[in-house]
Amino acid sequence: MAESWSFLDTVECNFRPLVVIELAKGTKEETIEWFTKRIVDKKGDGDVTLIYFLLILPFFKGAQLLIKPLVTENGHENIYLVGASHLRLLLGAETVGLVKECNDNSMRTFTYSSRKTFKDFADDNHNFLTMAECQYIIKHELENLRAKNEKMIPGYPQAKLYPGKSIVRRLLTSGILIQIFPLHDREELKKLRHSWYGRVKVGYQPLDDIRCYFGETIALYFGFLEYFTFALIPMAVIGIPYYVFAWEDYDKYVMFATFNLLWSTVILEVWKRICAILTYRWGTLLMKRQFEEPRSGFHGVLGINPVTGREEPVYSSLKRQLRIYLVSLPFVCLCLYFSLYVMMIYFDLEQWALDYHKENESNFSSLMLYVPSIIYAVVIEIMNRIYRYAAEFLTSWENHRLESSYQNHLILKVLVFNFLNCFASLFYIAFILFDMKLLRQSLATLLITSQILNQFAESLLPYWLQKRHNKRMKKRVCAQKTDSDLSLAEQVNMEKEMGTYLGTFDDYLELFLQFGYVSLFSCVYPLAAVFAVLNNITEIYSDALKMCRVYKRPFAEPTANIGVWQLAFETMSVISVVTNCMLIGMSPQVDALFPDSKIDLVLTVALVEHLLLAIKFIMAFVIPDKPRDIQMKLARLEFESLEALKQQ
Amino acid sequence: MAESWSFLDTVECNFRPLVVIELAKGTKEETIEWFTKRIVDKKGDGDVTLIYFLLILPFFKGAQLLIKPLVTENGHENIYLVGASHLRLLLGAETVGLVKECNDNSMRTFTYSSRKTFKDFADDNHNFLTMAECQYIIKHELENLRAKNEKMIPGYPQAKLYPGKSIVRRLLTSGILIQIFPLHDREELKKLRHSWYGRVKVGYQPLDDIRCYFGETIALYFGFLEYFTFALIPMAVIGIPYYVFAWEDYDKYVMFATFNLLWSTVILEVWKRICAILTYRWGTLLMKRQFEEPRSGFHGVLGINPVTGREEPVYSSLKRQLRIYLVSLPFVCLCLYFSLYVMMIYFDLEQWALDYHKENESNFSSLMLYVPSIIYAVVIEIMNRIYRYAAEFLTSWENHRLESSYQNHLILKVLVFNFLNCFASLFYIAFILFDMKLLRQSLATLLITSQILNQFAESLLPYWLQKRHNKRMKKRVCAQKTDSDLSLAEQVNMEKEMGTYLGTFDDYLELFLQFGYVSLFSCVYPLAAVFAVLNNITEIYSDALKMCRVYKRPFAEPTANIGVWQLAFETMSVISVVTNCMLIGMSPQVDALFPDSKIDLVLTVALVEHLLLAIKFIMAFVIPDKPRDIQMKLARLEFESLEALKQQ
Repeated sequence: MAESWSFLDTVECNFRPLVVIELAKGTKEETIEWFTKRIVDKKGDGDVTLIYFLLILPFFKGAQLLIKPLVTENGHENIYLVGASHLRLLLGAETVGLVKECNDNSMRTFTYSSRKTFKDFADDNHNFLTMAECQYIIKHELENLRAKNEKMIPGYPQAKLYPGKSIVRRLLTSGILIQIFPLHDREELKKLRHSWYGRVKVGYQPLDDIRCYFGETIALYFGFLEYFTFALIPMAVIGIPYYVFAWEDYDKYVMFATFNLLWSTVILEVWKRICAILTYRWGTLLMKRQFEEPRSGFHGVLGINPVTGREEPVYSSLKRQLRIYLVSLPFVCLCLYFSLYVMMIYFDLEQWALDYHKENESNFSSLMLYVPSIIYAVVIEIMNRIYRYAAEFLTSWENHRLESSYQNHLILKVLVFNFLNCFASLFYIAFILFDMKLLRQSLATLLITSQILNQFAESLLPYWLQKRHNKRMKKRVCAQKTDSDLSLAEQVNMEKEMGTYLGTFDDYLELFLQFGYVSLFSCVYPLAAVFAVLNNITEIYSDALKMCRVYKRPFAEPTANIGVWQLAFETMSVISVVTNCMLIGMSPQVDALFPDSKIDLVLTVALVEHLLLAIKFIMAFVIPDKPRDIQMKLARLEFESLEALKQQ
Repeated sequence: MAESWSFLDTVECNFRPLVVIELAKGTKEETIEWFTKRIVDKKGDGDVTLIYFLLILPFFKGAQLLIKPLVTENGHENIYLVGASHLRLLLGAETVGLVKECNDNSMRTFTYSSRKTFKDFADDNHNFLTMAECQYIIKHELENLRAKNEKMIPGYPQAKLYPGKSIVRRLLTSGILIQIFPLHDREELKKLRHSWYGRVKVGYQPLDDIRCYFGETIALYFGFLEYFTFALIPMAVIGIPYYVFAWEDYDKYVMFATFNLLWSTVILEVWKRICAILTYRWGTLLMKRQFEEPRSGFHGVLGINPVTGREEPVYSSLKRQLRIYLVSLPFVCLCLYFSLYVMMIYFDLEQWALDYHKENESNFSSLMLYVPSIIYAVVIEIMNRIYRYAAEFLTSWENHRLESSYQNHLILKVLVFNFLNCFASLFYIAFILFDMKLLRQSLATLLITSQILNQFAESLLPYWLQKRHNKRMKKRVCAQKTDSDLSLAEQVNMEKEMGTYLGTFDDYLELFLQFGYVSLFSCVYPLAAVFAVLNNITEIYSDALKMCRVYKRPFAEPTANIGVWQLAFETMSVISVVTNCMLIGMSPQVDALFPDSKIDLVLTVALVEHLLLAIKFIMAFVIPDKPRDIQMKLARLEFESLEALKQQ
């Protein structure tokens, strides 16, 4: 039935499934009929009010995609495959504003009319757009499928619609649509796996291939991970002799710390340049930001959006500010205070365990020594999880209109709490207890255990679970086939059960905390960089495994930079100047240089700290964010568009 | 002769002179003929190679303006008046990208085809463009008059030209063209003077009128001056009781200083918002940055500009960097060192004079007490002037391609040196001599004398000289006429002798140094803000006088913000956090709070300082740079242009 529609208006018969839509079991027939009709309907409805729709409401129209139900042995399972004709995808590429390379090696926004000027374009070359790009286009078109004059979803009177409301989002929020996800390309994935982590080799990751398959956000994460690992190597190399030869002279430590502080500024500035090079090549640096639609969870009374003039829910910005500053901010502060309180209890417990061990030395008492740490670790983990839920709830309750603003507020909340949880105890040991030996020991323990636990919990465990699950599935479905022999139906059924990759947040958070361990106390434990490098090398592999094997393929997300994480890393490197200067100032060797007056010591340390901070800011200011050739290329494009405007 | 050309292609007969061109006496006839022909020639030459010129070299063409020689009683004086037809000006407004208000109160880039949608537009309304805008357009067109295939300026074989070289700039550098300046509009100026400073009144300056007459850069300076004065009033009001009641309790001073530090952050952030409101209303916030041509002093071997693809001088960026970092930077450092050295000599002299006075007390010796200060003031003034020349020479030698980059490098050089000259002695007194009484005294002396001297040297003296000169001129020319009765020729002759306003640099520098006096040591001398407010009120009047009476009318310069000065003021406010915390820490009252340990005192001060800095940065981050309604309007424009692109 749906097939007849999907093939009605198209000459192309080679339907290539790109995206899977899973509807709830028992979805009413009329709903399915209406939804699929909207998906395949032409953009300009052929209606009498065509001109009206084109000029005034150009967003009320079909998506003109192809859709096919997935028929398996068990019959119809409410799973649909969405594809699109080659022409439709090219027009979609223009709509989303994709930037591609031209024949003259410059990057330009793709338009259908100028398609011949683009590199590798040929009318029969279906690889001009990568599969990830095609899937991104289809996702964009589906999400922009908007209600015309429907008051509700047919068959579900409680699922209200208003003109301009995204149909897919309403279907998702009312539970009719279970999920939309892009299909893996088994062949491509195999190739990518092979070049990425299939063989043991020394070299760069195939970032361009990763980008083609998973999109820019994920490729940029792996690019950052790789760059960061390389950038840590000098720190690690310089740090090793300190451990091997047990150099305890603080003049050497001062040099090491100074190097670290300046180095961390340099690497963050250079990353911006590398990021610009990568995203220029991928076209996202030039991609014009599309007008952002309200996020799916956003609610409010129907009103007129002052920017677009369209009818959509509006929510007072003042109310949101009040919620942020009067509820969220105090709540976060309270949580931070609570977390500090728990830390103090932990230190008390530790003291108590030590005392107990001293008084009655036994096997039991020496076991008891570990109990506080274990309890504390468990409590922190629980607190982290509860806080994460609370933060998500609060940020969602703040009712941000845009997904980006929601993400930024969520990241900020989670970041502050995680920072405190990870580093508060180290700060306490360093600057209240003044116990450098304990600091070094705690730092090493925290760093190493967190790295091992993370890699296990994040990649290896899910991989193992997924593998077991797949095996069972395969056994049930089709006896003894290998992956690539699977039929489409089997592939879809297997992939729809896979977990959903929730974005790069946790991966960046892990790197951020690692950067904290490496830089905040670098002059006390130079070996941290070595562990970080070792961890990151395996992290690349385990993350790659996770992306390729464990999770559903995620939709590609074009992005031009790592966003708020750049700011977070820069803030961390500023804080690390302060902590390192304090640590050096507290060392007995430096102390010995100022035998007469402690004041001179403190003043000198403060002076040095201010100088270092000033140098950092000047360096960040002087190093251009984009390499000269990228700047020139951008200037050239801007000049051309100015000239074109003049010519008009 | 020139007249015949200028009226050849135009139907309009009401020639309104807008800009004056003064050629050197004895300029060859063929040069004048060629130059005026280029000015009046049509844009698209009517040539056989028209298509070539339009498509490939759209910048090789005439300016299609009107030009008329100024005939005085003394005959032909090589002075020409330039005007343009109304239509030509409207087309020029489109070329320079002027932004005007539409009928629906939104701001849009003016295009000739959409002219009917703009507010107050009528084909016969010659006031749609302000006179300053017309003059800006003519200046732009004249500067973009480029050589076609001339190898040199006719009649001057040594003045080389190459295709695309700006003719006017070559004429200026080879001394054939003495000056180009816009004419005053006596009527308008009178009205402006009256509403600006003509009557004694309390209220805002007529910023919109100033902008109409002098352009955005100057209006923005006066806007900033006014805003800054208002912003200082709270500091002044809170500062007065400290002086009156001689509150020497440092807990009160701490409160005052803290207030000052946070207040200075707030005012700088709020200024960004006010600046956005002003420049949105004036259209410059939306104005697209034109492609910047090389500045007139830029030289190099002929090559291809990688951005425009045009032939123009190119100069290696590496060479420039080497000149900056290997010559200019060391030179500036040397000058700074020298300036410090001179300061030390001054302090030695002062000590010597004091000793001398103590030994043999007499009238002569008490006079001698003032000698070091006077010598130092004179030396500083001389050093400032020499350094200014050196900085200009060096920055020019660095051979920056863009005027903006030249300006930024020059400002930076001059700023650092002036900062040191003004404040080094105060820093020395405060943090080396620890003499708070002397600090307060020096601060007051420096602040007040510099204010008085500045106002005198900058406005009143030139005004007086100009007035005397004008009187003599008038006497010579036309016995007893009032200003408005002057004939055009007399007006031109008078204005061409007036001084040239060299831009807002010195005015901003004065404000910057004043901000330093007020904020750096605010907790020692709270009365500084009072003097600053008083000075600024008179400064507004004397600067207004200067603009209206002393100088030639300057060309309007569209600008969207105060540029590098925002950064300079923000840096100053960061430095002032450090100095104020140190001053408070050094006070005996705070000292007394930590009787046992000096270390605790220093650490507490450092902690407070870091907290204040953190609060400053967070505040700067949290306060949005543009008010919400401006943000919405900008978003609306962006959305519309995206929609328009999609429709194409």
